[in-house]
Amino acid sequence: MLKTMNLSQPMSKADYKAAAAKLRVELLQLQFQLSRRDKPVIIVIAGDDRSGRHETINTLLEWLDPRFIRVNAYGPVETQDDAKPFFWRYWKDLPEAGNVGVYLREWTSTSVVQFLNDEIDDAHLARRLSTIRHFEKTLSDDGALLIKVWLHLSKSAHQERVQKVRNTPFYDPKDELALKNFDKATQTIETVLEETDAPHAPWHVVNGDDEMQRAIVVGESIAKQIRYWLDREKPAAAAALPPTDSHTNVLDQIDLSLGIKKEVYETELDAKRQQLREVMTQAHEKGVAVVCAFEGADAAGKGGAIRRVVTALDAGLYRIVPVAKPTDVEYAHHYLWRFWKHIPANGLMTIFDRSWYGRVLVERVEGFAATHEWQRAYQEIKDFERQLTDHGVVLIKFWLHIDQDEQLKRFKSREQTAHKKHKITDEDYRNREKWPEYREAIHDMITQTDTSYAPWALIPAQDKKYARLEVLNTIITKTQAALDAL
Amino acid sequence: MLKTMNLSQPMSKADYKAAAAKLRVELLQLQFQLSRRDKPVIIVIAGDDRSGRHETINTLLEWLDPRFIRVNAYGPVETQDDAKPFFWRYWKDLPEAGNVGVYLREWTSTSVVQFLNDEIDDAHLARRLSTIRHFEKTLSDDGALLIKVWLHLSKSAHQERVQKVRNTPFYDPKDELALKNFDKATQTIETVLEETDAPHAPWHVVNGDDEMQRAIVVGESIAKQIRYWLDREKPAAAAALPPTDSHTNVLDQIDLSLGIKKEVYETELDAKRQQLREVMTQAHEKGVAVVCAFEGADAAGKGGAIRRVVTALDAGLYRIVPVAKPTDVEYAHHYLWRFWKHIPANGLMTIFDRSWYGRVLVERVEGFAATHEWQRAYQEIKDFERQLTDHGVVLIKFWLHIDQDEQLKRFKSREQTAHKKHKITDEDYRNREKWPEYREAIHDMITQTDTSYAPWALIPAQDKKYARLEVLNTIITKTQAALDAL
Repeated sequence: MLKTMNLSQPMSKADYKAAAAKLRVELLQLQFQLSRRDKPVIIVIAGDDRSGRHETINTLLEWLDPRFIRVNAYGPVETQDDAKPFFWRYWKDLPEAGNVGVYLREWTSTSVVQFLNDEIDDAHLARRLSTIRHFEKTLSDDGALLIKVWLHLSKSAHQERVQKVRNTPFYDPKDELALKNFDKATQTIETVLEETDAPHAPWHVVNGDDEMQRAIVVGESIAKQIRYWLDREKPAAAAALPPTDSHTNVLDQIDLSLGIKKEVYETELDAKRQQLREVMTQAHEKGVAVVCAFEGADAAGKGGAIRRVVTALDAGLYRIVPVAKPTDVEYAHHYLWRFWKHIPANGLMTIFDRSWYGRVLVERVEGFAATHEWQRAYQEIKDFERQLTDHGVVLIKFWLHIDQDEQLKRFKSREQTAHKKHKITDEDYRNREKWPEYREAIHDMITQTDTSYAPWALIPAQDKKYARLEVLNTIITKTQAALDAL
Repeated sequence: MLKTMNLSQPMSKADYKAAAAKLRVELLQLQFQLSRRDKPVIIVIAGDDRSGRHETINTLLEWLDPRFIRVNAYGPVETQDDAKPFFWRYWKDLPEAGNVGVYLREWTSTSVVQFLNDEIDDAHLARRLSTIRHFEKTLSDDGALLIKVWLHLSKSAHQERVQKVRNTPFYDPKDELALKNFDKATQTIETVLEETDAPHAPWHVVNGDDEMQRAIVVGESIAKQIRYWLDREKPAAAAALPPTDSHTNVLDQIDLSLGIKKEVYETELDAKRQQLREVMTQAHEKGVAVVCAFEGADAAGKGGAIRRVVTALDAGLYRIVPVAKPTDVEYAHHYLWRFWKHIPANGLMTIFDRSWYGRVLVERVEGFAATHEWQRAYQEIKDFERQLTDHGVVLIKFWLHIDQDEQLKRFKSREQTAHKKHKITDEDYRNREKWPEYREAIHDMITQTDTSYAPWALIPAQDKKYARLEVLNTIITKTQAALDAL
C-alpha cells in the first residue's frame, strides 16, 4: 500500500492558497451538515512522528471549527493508564453523534510502535490486529464514519531531513535510528496496513514529503469521504438468525427445585461472605479486576444478591452501576460506550445491575434496536468480553432464573410490603405478557454468548437464599481460580 | 462538640434487631421518596480509621438499596490525582438529583489528617476550612441535603481496643501512635468541627464505641434529616442587588475605536503565535495549568480568536469545551459541576467557549435561574475561581466587546457567506432585543467578579484582528508571569 501512494510534484504556494480557500468553505459546510447527523465522525491521522501528523491536524483545525472537534492524543502505553484493557482509552473518548473526534497516536500507530520496540511479539500483534478489525467494524456497523489517513515519508525525504539538521541544535538521534530501521519499519507498516484495511475502514496513504501538498490531499480526502457518507443510505440489514426451536429452550435445563434450609443458609452466608472478603482483598492486592453482570427477570432477586455481595466488601473497592434507560449523552454514543467507561482498573470490581445484554433482551423485544442491530450485537459483545478477559479481568455473567408463577407471587408480595410497594408498577405487569418473546431472546443470548472465556452462570433463583449463596460461590470460585493461575 | 456526644449504655442484640428492622423500612421508604426529588443527598461519614466508618457504611448499605448509592472513597492525597485542585475530586463525584452519595475519607477528615501529619500548616488549614464552608454552603444553597456524621471513639475505648490486640497478629503500631497523639488529635478535631459546623451543614458527633448503638444512632439521624428535608420549603430568596446605575456601565469604558492595520497584524500574528507556543511548552514542562473562559455577545469573534490560539499549540496539550444547553445529566447536578469536571491537570490547558458565567448572563436574562440563584452565583463563582488560582492555575477571563451596530453588520455579512449562513438563526435576532438587559447583566458580572486573583480581560473586539492579538497577548503575558513567579 505504501508503494501506491501519491508522489506527484510539490505544490506552489499560490496553488496551495487557492486550494485551501476552496477546501475550507467545503469542509465548514460539511461540518455543519454532519453536526445534525445522529452518528459521529472518527478521523485517524496516523504515521510516524516525522511525517507531519501534528502539522496536518493543526491545519485541519484551522479549516474546520475546532470547537466541535476533539483531538484525542495518547502518550506511550506505559505512561497511559495501563491498568485497563488497551481499547478502553479509545472507547471512552469516542465522539458523540454530530461531532468529530480526531485520534493522534491511536490504536494502529501505537501497535506498530509497540511491535518495533519489542514490547509485543508476533502473536500479540496478530491478536491486536484482529481486535482492531473488530473495533472498527463495530463502529462502522453502528453508522459512524471512520476515516483513516496514514502519512508516510519517503526514505529520501527522511534522509534529507536528517541531513539538514545533522549539525544543528534540532538534531535528534532518534531520527537517525528511525532512518537506520526504515526498511524494517516500512515492512511492518505495510503488513499492518494491509491487515487493517477494510471496505468500511480503508486506509488512505498520503505522502508526507511536501507539507502543503500533504495538507490538501488529506483535506480533500476527508471532504470526499464525509460527503459520500452524508449522502449514503443506511446499511442493509444482516441475515436473520435461524428461528429458535422452542422445545429446547436452554432455560428449561435449569433446575428450579433447588433450595436450601434457613439454618444452613445463615451459617453458610456468613462463611461465604467472609471468604469473599478474603479473596477480593487478595484480588485487590494482586491487581485482578472483577466484572459481574447481573441479568434476570423483574423480581428475580438481583438487588438482594448484589446487596449480599457488596456489603461484605470494602466500600472503596467496588462500584455498582445500575443500568437503566440511556441518558441523552449515552444515547448519542455507540451502545457499548457506557459500559466501557465503567470497566474497573486492575484490582477493583464493577457490578452491573443489568448490562450490555439489554441490547439483545429489552431492546430486541421492545423493538428499540432494529433487527440487524441486535443480531450484530452477539458478535460485538463477544469481542468486548474477549478484550476484558484477555486483559485479565474476571468476568462473571449471571442469569438469575425464576418462572412466571414465582414472579407473580413476588409481585403480589411486594405490593403487600410498605417499603417494596413502589417497586411494582403497571409496566411490570405489562412486561409479563411478553414472557414467551423474552424466553426466546434469553435462549438466543445464552447460546450465542456462552464462551470459554466468559461462560454464563445460570442460577436457579426460585429459592432466593439458594441463589444468593450460588452467586457468592461463583464469584469466590472464579476469582480464586484467576488468582491461582497468576 | 466531642464532649456533648451520646455516651449512653451499649445496646443489647435484641434491641438492635428490633430497631434495625424498623429503621430499614423507614430508610427504604425515604430513599424511594428522595429518588423523585430534583436534588441529591450527600452523606459524609467522617472520623478516624478506628471509629468504624467502614462498618457503619456497610450497615447503611444493607439497610438501603445500595444500587442507588455511590460510595466515594478517597486515598491519601499524595496517591490521589494531586495535579488538580483539592476539591476537584469531590466535585466530580457529586451525586446527581435523586441519588445518594456517601463520602468516605472526604474533605474534612482528609484535612485533619494532613494537618496532623504536618502536610499543611495552620494558615493552610484556616484557608482550607474557609473553602469547606463555602463548598458546603454552595451545595446546600442549591438545595442538596448535606448530612455530616463524625464518628468519635472515646480514649478508653481506644485504649481497650489496642490492649485487646497488642499481642495478636491484628496489632498495628499505627493504633498505638494514634493513642499517643489522642489528645492533640482531639483538640484539632474539636476546632475543625466547630469551624465547619453550620446551620445548613451541621455536624452530628456519634460515639463509635459500641458498634450496634453507633449504627442505630447514625441511621436514625440520617432518617430524621432526610424526612425533614423532604418536608421542608424551598429556601427563601436572598436580598436583591442594588439596581445598576446605567450611566456608569463598565462596558462604556472599553475603547471600541482600537484597531490594527492588516500588514502589521499578519507579522504580529505569526510572532505572537510563535511566542504562545513557546510559553505554553514551558508551562507544560513546569506543570502550570491554564484555563481560559471566553465570553462575549453573539458574533463577537470568540470562535475566531480561539482558533488562532489553539492552532498554535500541540493538540495533546489543550481541550476546547463549548458550553451550550446542559445535558440531562448536567442539569441534574449543581451548575458548577460540569465546569469542575473539565479543570485541566497541571501542565494542560482548557478553553471554555462560554463558561460558568452563563449563570449570571443568559440564565439571568432569560429567567432560567431564579433571582436568588443567579445573585448567589457571584460569590460561588469567586469561590470556584479562588480555588483554581490557589492551586496555581492561570485563569484568564475574556470579555470580547462589540457594539450593537457591529453585531448587526456581522449577522448580515454571515448571511451572505455560504459557510457561515447556518450560524445565524431567528433566535440571534430575538436576542438582540434584550441588549439593554444583557448590558446590565454584563456590568454586574464584571464589577462583581473582577478580583485580584482573577481579573477580567476586557477586549475591544470591533476590530477582529486587534482582538485576536490582544487575546494572544493576554495569554502569553499572564502565563509568562506565572512561570516567572515559580
